[in-house]
Amino acid sequence: FDEAAARAARARQAQLTKPPGSLGRLEELAIFLAGWRGTDRPRIDHAQAIVFAGNHGVCAQGVNPFPQAVTGQMVANFQAGGAAINQLCRTAGADLTVIALDVDRPTADFTEGPAMTEAECLDALARGGAAVDPQADLLLLGEMGIGNSTIAAALGHGAFGGAARDWVGPGTGADAARIALKADVVARGVARHGHRPPLSLLAALGGREQAAICGAVLAARLARIPVLLDGFICSAAVAPLAAADPALLDHCLVGHLSGEPGHRALSAALGKRPILDLGMSLGEGTGAALALGVLRGALACHNGMATFAEAGVSGA
Amino acid sequence: FDEAAARAARARQAQLTKPPGSLGRLEELAIFLAGWRGTDRPRIDHAQAIVFAGNHGVCAQGVNPFPQAVTGQMVANFQAGGAAINQLCRTAGADLTVIALDVDRPTADFTEGPAMTEAECLDALARGGAAVDPQADLLLLGEMGIGNSTIAAALGHGAFGGAARDWVGPGTGADAARIALKADVVARGVARHGHRPPLSLLAALGGREQAAICGAVLAARLARIPVLLDGFICSAAVAPLAAADPALLDHCLVGHLSGEPGHRALSAALGKRPILDLGMSLGEGTGAALALGVLRGALACHNGMATFAEAGVSGA
Repeated sequence: FDEAAARAARARQAQLTKPPGSLGRLEELAIFLAGWRGTDRPRIDHAQAIVFAGNHGVCAQGVNPFPQAVTGQMVANFQAGGAAINQLCRTAGADLTVIALDVDRPTADFTEGPAMTEAECLDALARGGAAVDPQADLLLLGEMGIGNSTIAAALGHGAFGGAARDWVGPGTGADAARIALKADVVARGVARHGHRPPLSLLAALGGREQAAICGAVLAARLARIPVLLDGFICSAAVAPLAAADPALLDHCLVGHLSGEPGHRALSAALGKRPILDLGMSLGEGTGAALALGVLRGALACHNGMATFAEAGVSGA
Repeated sequence: FDEAAARAARARQAQLTKPPGSLGRLEELAIFLAGWRGTDRPRIDHAQAIVFAGNHGVCAQGVNPFPQAVTGQMVANFQAGGAAINQLCRTAGADLTVIALDVDRPTADFTEGPAMTEAECLDALARGGAAVDPQADLLLLGEMGIGNSTIAAALGHGAFGGAARDWVGPGTGADAARIALKADVVARGVARHGHRPPLSLLAALGGREQAAICGAVLAARLARIPVLLDGFICSAAVAPLAAADPALLDHCLVGHLSGEPGHRALSAALGKRPILDLGMSLGEGTGAALALGVLRGALACHNGMATFAEAGVSGA
């Protein structure tokens, strides 16, 4: 983070033709992007969106009403341009990369043992990092994986404690009985693996798309590319990084507050304030893609507005 | 509102490749636009944004730290393309119309008498209505007028009651002493004029840009053009319409929850849930222009996504 660039961006904000602070969060976002990109006039010429997809052994417990085949079918839908994320990336101007992580080979059921071996987890981390385009100005992260709201609940519960029932929710459409089942499954998984240190917790409770998201976040950090995380699943995916060191997520924003009930507490635990709150719970990166519009607006104002002096407007 | 078109849009939403309801507010917005535009596949090919500007006699009471000359200077800034609203309209794809309403001839001070005569109010209403392009698919409304957060507080207080201090706030940058002064000014204005029926209240407490906003809202309604109001000032401008008949605002959305403290209660009184909440308080239509990006995303998903059948994706 380049403090000098952030300071220069803040000084520019104070000269633009508006009352100080009146653009609210847009001002903060412009200064944040300036600091991470190392320039007082940051641009988003190339926004990369990555959707990571994976399948989960814990589906054997009946946590999700959809068949696991839907994960691969949705990957095909992403590739054909028919999913929500395709439309929102086109609207917001993001280039979509779809990475299917062995969707025909689900992880193991975490109630019976670790979901991934350490080697499998490291492989997914590396593939996530390798998917990041180092030329991008901004990275949007999303995911697809039948059953992964249960994975997210387990990672949140494992990293931040509380009660299992506070981390579960309807996901793609679980009814009350299935939500109770999810809470039981999550409680059993965390009882088995919750003592592990953060990266081992990621392997034991996570899935390939969660590990890949962590890898992409770390790779983006090295390249000073700010990250726009989607919602509940992405926030939970990086919970092990926060448990290891909260500063690892300093370059990350959360695109939207998910309708999934655990996301409010999870965002607070991560110290993040989601940009949008529209009751969405689809995943895929859809909340991040919508929030990209807000970032574009923030930079359009930051870079395009006239100063008081340029416009001949009187001050207070 | 075309119920059949809304029903058809709702039926389409249920077939798109996503769990039912998972696009949250985006689904509601697509259905709302379908109903008002009378088609199950609404588009926003032409979004018109109008900024109305006016000056206010109540500034003689010292309610605003900026000189009234800033209103005209900002109109020039809008026309030169240097203001925040210019950048956000360009980013979101809206055509900006700027209407200066006799900014060199402020209204009267409402603490001493009616701000406008009925004839002046009707003239501004008519000019607001005439500014609406009947070919627009969507109308965004914004405003500029030094002192008009005091006007807004008076209209909100006059239309919906409560205490004057609950309707005032910092506006463009009032300190605690000036906010207390604003509350006193608003209380005096409402004590003098609060007994009047809604349209007379608009004339007595409002300004030309407030009356023009009401005129534009009514004209859009006749042309079945949905309206995206900006924030606090625009919401207060239409409070007299809500007091006359809340259904007059059925075609209106509120773009964002303003940082101005009175806007939360005002939105609730209007029965509106603002789309964004980003701590903005600039006016000009900036919150509406940012929210246009959300509407564009909602329609991109609605019109562009594949159905379960088209994509070969299994249901639950």
